[in-house]
Amino acid sequence: MTTSDAGSDAGNDAGSAKKAPARDPWELPDVSGLVVGVLGGTGDQGRGLAYRLARAGQQVIIGSRAAERAEAAAAELGHGVRGMDNAACARASDVVIVAVPWEGHARTLEGLAGDLAGTLVVDCVNPLGFDKRGAYAVRPEEGSAAEQAAALLPESRVTAAFHHLSAVLLRDPAIEKIDTDVLVLGDSRADCEIVQALAGRIPGMRGIFAGRLRTAHQVESLVANLIAVNRRYKAHAGIRLTDV
Amino acid sequence: MTTSDAGSDAGNDAGSAKKAPARDPWELPDVSGLVVGVLGGTGDQGRGLAYRLARAGQQVIIGSRAAERAEAAAAELGHGVRGMDNAACARASDVVIVAVPWEGHARTLEGLAGDLAGTLVVDCVNPLGFDKRGAYAVRPEEGSAAEQAAALLPESRVTAAFHHLSAVLLRDPAIEKIDTDVLVLGDSRADCEIVQALAGRIPGMRGIFAGRLRTAHQVESLVANLIAVNRRYKAHAGIRLTDV
Repeated sequence: MTTSDAGSDAGNDAGSAKKAPARDPWELPDVSGLVVGVLGGTGDQGRGLAYRLARAGQQVIIGSRAAERAEAAAAELGHGVRGMDNAACARASDVVIVAVPWEGHARTLEGLAGDLAGTLVVDCVNPLGFDKRGAYAVRPEEGSAAEQAAALLPESRVTAAFHHLSAVLLRDPAIEKIDTDVLVLGDSRADCEIVQALAGRIPGMRGIFAGRLRTAHQVESLVANLIAVNRRYKAHAGIRLTDV
Repeated sequence: MTTSDAGSDAGNDAGSAKKAPARDPWELPDVSGLVVGVLGGTGDQGRGLAYRLARAGQQVIIGSRAAERAEAAAAELGHGVRGMDNAACARASDVVIVAVPWEGHARTLEGLAGDLAGTLVVDCVNPLGFDKRGAYAVRPEEGSAAEQAAALLPESRVTAAFHHLSAVLLRDPAIEKIDTDVLVLGDSRADCEIVQALAGRIPGMRGIFAGRLRTAHQVESLVANLIAVNRRYKAHAGIRLTDV
């Protein structure tokens, strides 16, 4: 497909016809010294991510509304994970992953805007609804959970990633490698590269840049489709990009 | 994750906790005798799909507004592909893939509702916009291109699939296998399984059921992200589901 007809045809080739950036997209920063906070770290997804990152050697702090709950979850995970209340976690971390339930997303972030000023925030929340026919996408007014975070945290550096991971696989200590790619979205290349590098610390994962924050809605919503796949195939489906 | 907290947490495990269907999801019908029409078959994506299906042994008819253009494209593709105007293609086919540009999607289908009555329709159109910052999702009033097709074709059996394929790879005769999964969406299991089986005829592809038609928007829109990936990594990215 040529660039000129990219807008008027199906298929995904439009990008490849454009001028490629000069830099090697696989050249990522060393993030081994960064402290990673996980807000909502007592939930299944947050706990799973905290466990995998800590097991990979990252310094990790779990945040929760109540410090005691965070401390208890941290002690259970081991690998040096610490627990704090959300505000303390936000202030003590270089990178903060937001893994709270969608229902509490806006409220949690509103209260932390000051504590998260200047911080690299990684939103991994999937706004979904559920009914008898399964899961379906919920569209936030801002366009996506990530764009809602960006609106509520004007002084933070907001990215989105880690949407498609199975908490069951993340939390199973017998599993060494998790065979999946992590799609990383954001408007700052440097910030995205930090998140890509973090994802790449977990064995089996690659962090792949997959577009600007304005394209986050479909990445968040795709979890509804993975849930349908899981149900039909009795799987814990992940995504791998081919030819990359 | 348990089913009860599926609505209030991130992650994709909700489906796997539900009761699995008794039937083997990989048991698919024999579709080798079906005639497949491709509307918009003179475009890059349609031509690529027609080529791959015909090369795999399927009887294929390319449809276009002008029969002569369809015949010329068909002659170029070989493998027994025929060309007809869209209405004749619709009437002569058991399964019709809609690969027209998004801009002409509604208009084309409106005119073919009678010719497509009773037919299995596979929509592969990606409603996207493009500006200086790249590709972005366009949200049709009906929710997705596939749901728009379903609204315009009340007597047809509408599914959605084949959104994420690279026309460059599809059309390169030197490429034997295309390493990707085809996400198939629809509300009728029997119809989805026909489309899954069709996808599976192309070497390297698997047709995977990935949800109801109401979850098509994110699958269509994800092409915006694949375009960003292609640009960054100089690739023709496809999607493979892991653990399935």
